[in-house]
Formats: sequence, structure tokens, C-alpha cells
Amino acid sequence: MRDLSKDHHWLSINTATVRQQADFVGIVEACARRGIRAVSPWRDQVAHVGLDRAVKAVRDAGLQLSGYCRGGMYTCDAAHKQEMLDDNRRAIDEAAALGAPCLVLVVGGLPQFSRPGSQPSKDIRAAHAQVTDAIGQLLNDAKAAKVPLAVEPLHPMYAADRACVNTLRQALDICDVLDPARSGALGVAIDTFHVWWDADVWEQIDRVGKERMLAFHVCDWLVPMKDMLLDRGMMGDGVIDIPAYRRAVEAQGYKGFVEVELLSNDWWSRPLDEVLDTCIARYQTVV
Amino acid sequence: MRDLSKDHHWLSINTATVRQQADFVGIVEACARRGIRAVSPWRDQVAHVGLDRAVKAVRDAGLQLSGYCRGGMYTCDAAHKQEMLDDNRRAIDEAAALGAPCLVLVVGGLPQFSRPGSQPSKDIRAAHAQVTDAIGQLLNDAKAAKVPLAVEPLHPMYAADRACVNTLRQALDICDVLDPARSGALGVAIDTFHVWWDADVWEQIDRVGKERMLAFHVCDWLVPMKDMLLDRGMMGDGVIDIPAYRRAVEAQGYKGFVEVELLSNDWWSRPLDEVLDTCIARYQTVV
Repeated sequence: MRDLSKDHHWLSINTATVRQQADFVGIVEACARRGIRAVSPWRDQVAHVGLDRAVKAVRDAGLQLSGYCRGGMYTCDAAHKQEMLDDNRRAIDEAAALGAPCLVLVVGGLPQFSRPGSQPSKDIRAAHAQVTDAIGQLLNDAKAAKVPLAVEPLHPMYAADRACVNTLRQALDICDVLDPARSGALGVAIDTFHVWWDADVWEQIDRVGKERMLAFHVCDWLVPMKDMLLDRGMMGDGVIDIPAYRRAVEAQGYKGFVEVELLSNDWWSRPLDEVLDTCIARYQTVV
Repeated sequence: MRDLSKDHHWLSINTATVRQQADFVGIVEACARRGIRAVSPWRDQVAHVGLDRAVKAVRDAGLQLSGYCRGGMYTCDAAHKQEMLDDNRRAIDEAAALGAPCLVLVVGGLPQFSRPGSQPSKDIRAAHAQVTDAIGQLLNDAKAAKVPLAVEPLHPMYAADRACVNTLRQALDICDVLDPARSGALGVAIDTFHVWWDADVWEQIDRVGKERMLAFHVCDWLVPMKDMLLDRGMMGDGVIDIPAYRRAVEAQGYKGFVEVELLSNDWWSRPLDEVLDTCIARYQTVV
């Protein structure tokens, strides 16, 4: 396992972590000022400043990306399918323009939440099938743009409204179906918050392999949790043995960035500098 | 699949569903008045009126039990182990006195939450091992008392503080280890709220078999959910295709009660009669 304690060379900041404190350009500049080498932008934050300005800000600051958030929300009714595909192709193009090493996929839950206006459904199995089908349809676009797709299993508490892929096993099963040759065009993003509970995850991490290990996200699980979406914990403040997951992921040959992605009303209420400095300190001591 | 629409012969009310409206005796009487034939009591509600009085109330009302809630909270440090075992043996004895067909197990998450005062731990794998070990130690007590133990996988959002057994696969793996002969002394409780998200659950339900299918609980998953613990939905108000799970469970040979277990600030704020009448109506129409 890499020694992260000496510097923050492999730290990346997911821009959602400080989305309330600054716009995308401001976040990039604040990261660059403290030697953070990478960010992972969210689409709406990029759209807010404009894609061209976002690309220029990243380039001017000399930053890299560790991913782009997000493609997906594949589940929908027939009337929304073309909109879904178009939206995802735009996401791939934006990721390519920004030089992202992968597009992170939040695959969608039931169609009425994934693509509002879609006919309501309770058929979670149909949702699973739609996800595999849609990724299959978009994989050639991703290959052409040289933007690997990273399926992110989300915590099962988001199965209805965000993602019906909730375990690493499921994500890897999709990879096996659509890219059995392990071309590198399809893989997974592993976030400690989403997978830490899973008794099966260790066996599944052993199954990933270097070609599919596209992104590693960290944050912590607080007890009690005040909000199902917006109360993720800063690393070290919760119950997740984060180094254990990093060790397993790096044993697969992963040598990339460790991306901090915190959606937290608490941390959003604090100054930008404090949040970024805390991310650096915790990265060096408890990740 | 059984036709439930004509009466409420197989309806059971978990007493937590109306815990704010009446004490255990009051709940039993209210159920009996409307022809509900079974309840599943919680230990603290029984303790509140006293075990003898609870036994008498059930007998006087001519009710059956569909289970007893709950044993478990097995994860703890060494200093709390004897207390944990004693507590579980008392739960088995109470279940026997009440004539419960099974003791439902909420197995515990990390030890500091399961048995407060235990040394804090982040080792979820050690917690899994403790659970299997403790059930193994208590299985003979359960057999002697003729109270089968029903491992209930809880939703993964409770992995830290309530139960580190979060999938039916895990629960059945424990059964395979400790009771490979399928003696009937160890099985599972399946609750739609806890398992509905799991892509693997259908394959796992096929694995259960009649001897291990000890309890079937229903309620619904609301979107949005206001509280991670106390905002379960009345059947029909959420996104779970409850009949699909009942069909699968009954295909395993299950012919027992359908137990409504709602932990809900909303439903706790309504009159006892309204809640029970709604349970009956929804049981007949959407379960």
C-alpha cells in the first residue's frame, strides 16, 4: 500500500465537496494554491461557468482530473429514452473536452426518479435490465471519445431514486456482460461510503483487476446520520476502516488518485480553506 | 400464491406498528376485536406490562404469535459477552412462554452500538464473525426451548448500528454453516423493506427452502424518506412490488402469517383504529 503520509500527491477533490463555497473556477484555483493536483468536477458546476472556461481553468491551473461526474440515469420510459441517450453522449463529450480519465456513472433507480416524467414503475428488475442495455448502447461512444465508463455502485438506500446498481458484484457483472475482454473502456468506481457495509465486497474487489479499477472515492459513514444524502462524514469522523479498502484496491494495481467526495450540509457550511485543509490532513493521516 | 383479498386470515400485526397508541394488552385486544389472529410482540412492550400478563392477554384473546422481536445484538467486546448471552437466553425463554413460532434476530452492527460501552471498532468483518459465533453458541438453547431462531437481514443503511447481516445471502450462509441439516431450528425472516433493493434476493429466496422460511414481514419504502429509522411506509404507499416478494416466498412453501411491521412517526401519530383498519385494507389489496 502506498504511503500517503508525506504529501498529498495523489489527493483529488471532487468539486461537490465544496460546491456551496465557490464556483468551479474558484474551486480549481483554491486547489491549485495548496498543491492539490486533481479535481473531479460535477456537470452542473461545469455548466455554471461554461465548458470552455472550465477547460481553460483546469489547464491554466495545471490540474488533472480523476473523473467526471456524472453520466447515467439510464432508467426511463420509452418517451424519455432519446433524451437520456443524448444527455449521456453530451456527458461523454464534456468528459473528453476536460481530459477526464473516466466518466462516473450513477445509473438511475426507478424511472420516475431517474428521468422525471417517466411512467412510474416498481419493477426494479426491469430497471437493472435497462441499465445494462443503455451502457451497452453508449459504450461505443465512450470508446470513440476515449472516455472509459466507470459504473459506481451506490449504497442500497439510494436504490429507488439514484442507482439500482448497489453492489460491486452487480457492477462487475455488468462489466463482464458488456466488456468481457476487459478492454479498459468499462470499469468501476469504488466509494468507501457506498460499499463499506458489504460482506461480499472483499471478494468482489479481488475480481476487479487493474483494467477496471477506474476511480477510488473516500468519505466516512457517520452514526447517527442526520440526512440520507447530505450528511457524509469527513474521513476519520465515522466508522469506515478506510485504509482497509484502499489496501484492497491498491492490491488490484490501482495507482491513481484518492478522490474525496463529501456531500455534507455540515462541511458545506464551513469556509473553503478549512474544508480543503482538512481534506489534506485527513488524507495524510486516516486514509 | 394465496388469495388474500377475501379476509385477513393470515394478517399479523407487529406490535411496534402501534407502539405509541397503546400498551401491549391494549394492542392485543384491539387486534382481537377486528379478527386479526396474530401479533408479533417486541420485548420492551411485553416487559412494560409484565411477561405473565402478556402471556395471559394473548391466551385470553385467542391470538397466535407470528414471531417475537427480538434477539441478537451479538456484537460486543469481551467484557459484555456474558451480558449478551444472558440477555439472549432470556429472550428465548420469553419467546417460549409466549408461544412464539420463532425469535427474530437483529444481529447487531459494530460493538459500540450493539452493546453500548463496548470498545469501539471499525472491523465489520470481525462483527460478522462474532454474529456467527454467538448464534452458534445459542442454538442449543433455542432447540431446547423449541424456539427457532430467525436471522433477519436488515437494510444495509443499518449495518453500523443495528445489523451487519444485510442480505439474504449472508443470512443463509450463516444457516448453512450452523445448521446444514436444515433442522428447522435456524432460518430467516424476510422483510420487504430490508431486501427489496437487492438484485441477488430472488436467487437467494430460491435457496431458502420451507424449513428456513420462518417469517415474512411487509411494509413499503417511501421516496423521499424523512427518517432512516422511523419513516417506513404503509404497504402501497411506496415503491416496493410487495406481491412479487410474497409470490417468491410462498413458492418456497411458506404458508404462515404476513406480518405488518411499520416503524413510522407518521403512523404512530394516527389513532390505533385507523392504523389497524388501514393494515387490514392494504393487506387485502396491495400485499
